Parts: sequence; structure tokens; C-alpha cells
Amino acid sequence: MLSTTERTRVRRGKARARTGREDLYAVLDAGLVCHLGVVVDGAPRVVPTAYARIGDTLYLHGSTGARSLRVGGEVCVTVTLLDGIVLARSAMHHSVNYRSAMVYGAPRPVTDPDEHLAALRAITEQLAPGQWDAVRRPDRKELAATAVLALSLEEASVKIRDAPPNDDEADYALPVWAGVLPVRTVFGEPEPDPRLDPPLPVPAHIHGRSTRSSAR
Amino acid sequence: MLSTTERTRVRRGKARARTGREDLYAVLDAGLVCHLGVVVDGAPRVVPTAYARIGDTLYLHGSTGARSLRVGGEVCVTVTLLDGIVLARSAMHHSVNYRSAMVYGAPRPVTDPDEHLAALRAITEQLAPGQWDAVRRPDRKELAATAVLALSLEEASVKIRDAPPNDDEADYALPVWAGVLPVRTVFGEPEPDPRLDPPLPVPAHIHGRSTRSSAR
Repeated sequence: MLSTTERTRVRRGKARARTGREDLYAVLDAGLVCHLGVVVDGAPRVVPTAYARIGDTLYLHGSTGARSLRVGGEVCVTVTLLDGIVLARSAMHHSVNYRSAMVYGAPRPVTDPDEHLAALRAITEQLAPGQWDAVRRPDRKELAATAVLALSLEEASVKIRDAPPNDDEADYALPVWAGVLPVRTVFGEPEPDPRLDPPLPVPAHIHGRSTRSSAR
Repeated sequence: MLSTTERTRVRRGKARARTGREDLYAVLDAGLVCHLGVVVDGAPRVVPTAYARIGDTLYLHGSTGARSLRVGGEVCVTVTLLDGIVLARSAMHHSVNYRSAMVYGAPRPVTDPDEHLAALRAITEQLAPGQWDAVRRPDRKELAATAVLALSLEEASVKIRDAPPNDDEADYALPVWAGVLPVRTVFGEPEPDPRLDPPLPVPAHIHGRSTRSSAR
């Protein structure tokens, strides 16, 4: 179960709240990028970035020079998967079907070399499963230039909407089409780097993703 | 041209920064949801939400009771479009192709009835083009319950990565496939509301989206 704190208690759309830890894992594991929120000089800043989960820890990485990783203090990491456009009979009941996770906390810098490497591996594999074993691993210089932050999943919330429109009762009589337009993230045909010389076949772990109906 | 302020000046990945107002419009107009960052009790909070642009103003809406719209002060709105997974010859050069826009500022509550209605129309149309004229418009009670915030596009930045991997020169000799795996957002077949009775045909403005290769 996810614990409830003042900020993870879902106030709006309570019917959409999920409280299982498995729901949290499923949303985080299905995403490709997250949105990282930090406070800089008292104002919010939201940046898209790669991430990965290992157990009950979420990892972020970035250049050791990047401001958003140097700020310290509290962050909010949000992962949103858009699943559909909800087309209602009235304008104000239009909505989206989605899965989203929000994780709050003060991340710690990862200093242990094994954890640092495991996190970088997980972040690479989240974006591109199978690549870690196919490409050159980070060397000492690259490792030193790459900061990794670890954020505990202790304080997190999950919201999922997966339903037809929720119209006002009187509006169901209107002669208006209503339903859900599904939204899917799909992979296209791999595009070889123009500098790939000699040409190599696209590995199965890459090509296989483009034949699937949705991301991950 | 986009003006440059301390926080919109792109520090990381300067080659990805775009400075044209048209680039900003294009990214904002192509998105379906944004990530709204606010500061609550000194900590960041990032929530996915609908939005729309009219001219040089970005509009957000929500229940008049929602905390993220009541907070006041500065916000950051980020729209991210993921276009591809960049598969490099080394782990640390893995990346994504994307278009993203960040808008900073202190939004003003919209009180003018005409602007309020125009914003709600634009937000509905951003998510579901053609729906405003097909469905029941908001009544007085719905309008009173829906807060709209207006955020000037004055302070904004745009980043776009649209390129093959950028490997270390020595790594180009490695026998590793490299390139880009395109990521696309597509619409599936419309799913009628189970309560749609009698069945109505799917309108062209909805059905037409599912035959397109990518969102919008």
C-alpha cells in the first residue's frame, strides 16, 4: 500500500486514486520520460528527463553541471501516460484517460560506485531495453561527469482514469456521439545513423519494439 | 524572437535551443497535455493538465476548488513531445529526440466572461478539435465552477533535438548499430460510450484523427 501524506492524499477526482504499490510500479515502469519539478529561487521549474526505477527507488541522472540536479531540497517527479481523449456530450465533461504517478521527496546524491552504475544501466534500459549489453559502457571519465540522484518512492500517489465519459444525467438524451478516442505511443521504423558504415542490421531488441502496438 | 531572461537562457545543450516565437507556438499547439509546476509550502508539485494557446497567452483551467490553481505566484508550464529514442554506440550518449517548451510566469485569473469562454473553448478544442460546436456548451453553473488562468508567453524557452546520435569520435568505429527509433503518438479506433443509445456514427472530426499517422 502507498502511505498517505498531506500532499499525496488525492483531493480532486478521488475515484481515480489508486493505493497499491503495484500500480505505482506499473506506471513508472511504463514511462519513457518523467517531468522533474524543482524550486529555483522560489519559483517552480519543470524539466523533462530520463529516469528509472529499481525496487523502491527512482533514479535520475544529469550532467554534474546541470542546475536542476544541483538545487537540492524537495523535488516532485511526475510520470504521465496519456491513454485516450474522453469525448463527452458536454464541453465541460471532456477529459483524458491517463495513468499518472507523482513522487515527492528530497533525493540523495548517489556516491556508491555500484549503485551509480546500476542506476545508469537502469536509466539506459528504461529508454532502450537491451542496449546496455550492446553498446560501450561508461568509462571512468563519463561516470565522473554524470550525477545520479536517488529518490525514495516512500511518498507517492497514483491516479488512473480509464472510463467512458461521465456526463450529466440529462445530457445522455442528447443526440451527440460520445466515447473515447484511444491515444497510443508507438515506435516507428528504426532510422539508421547516416554515419553507420558499414551498414549493420537493426538488432532484434530494437526492431522488435516498432512492431508492437504501444510503447513498452 | 523569444526574449532571454536568466531562467530561459538555455545552459545545457545550447545547440538545441530555438529562439523563434513560431517554434514556441508550434510546440504548444502540437501538445495534448502540459505539466504544470507550482510551489506548495515551499516544495514543487507537478501535475498533468489540459491547456490551450490563444495568441501570446496560454490558458489553464480547473475546478475553482483545486489547489494547484489557487496557489498564486509563479508557475512553470512545460509541454514535451517525444519524437524518438536516440540509440548511440555508447551508453552515455543515449538520448531522446524531442520538442519541448517551458513557459514561466505568474498567471492571472481570468474574470472577463468573453475571455473565460474563449479560453474554455480553446482548451476543449486543443484536446478534441471540432467538439465545441458538436456538444452542449457550458451553462452558467459550470462556468462559475471552472477557474481559468492566463499565463503570458512573454518568458518562455524552446528546445528541440532532432538528430542522429552524437557519439564520441572513436566510437564510430565500433560494430554497433546506431540510429533513431521514432516515437509517435497515434489515435486508435474511437470506442463508443456503452451508454450511447441509439448508436450514432462516429463524426468525421473524431474518426479522421485515428487515420492520421501522428497526433495532430
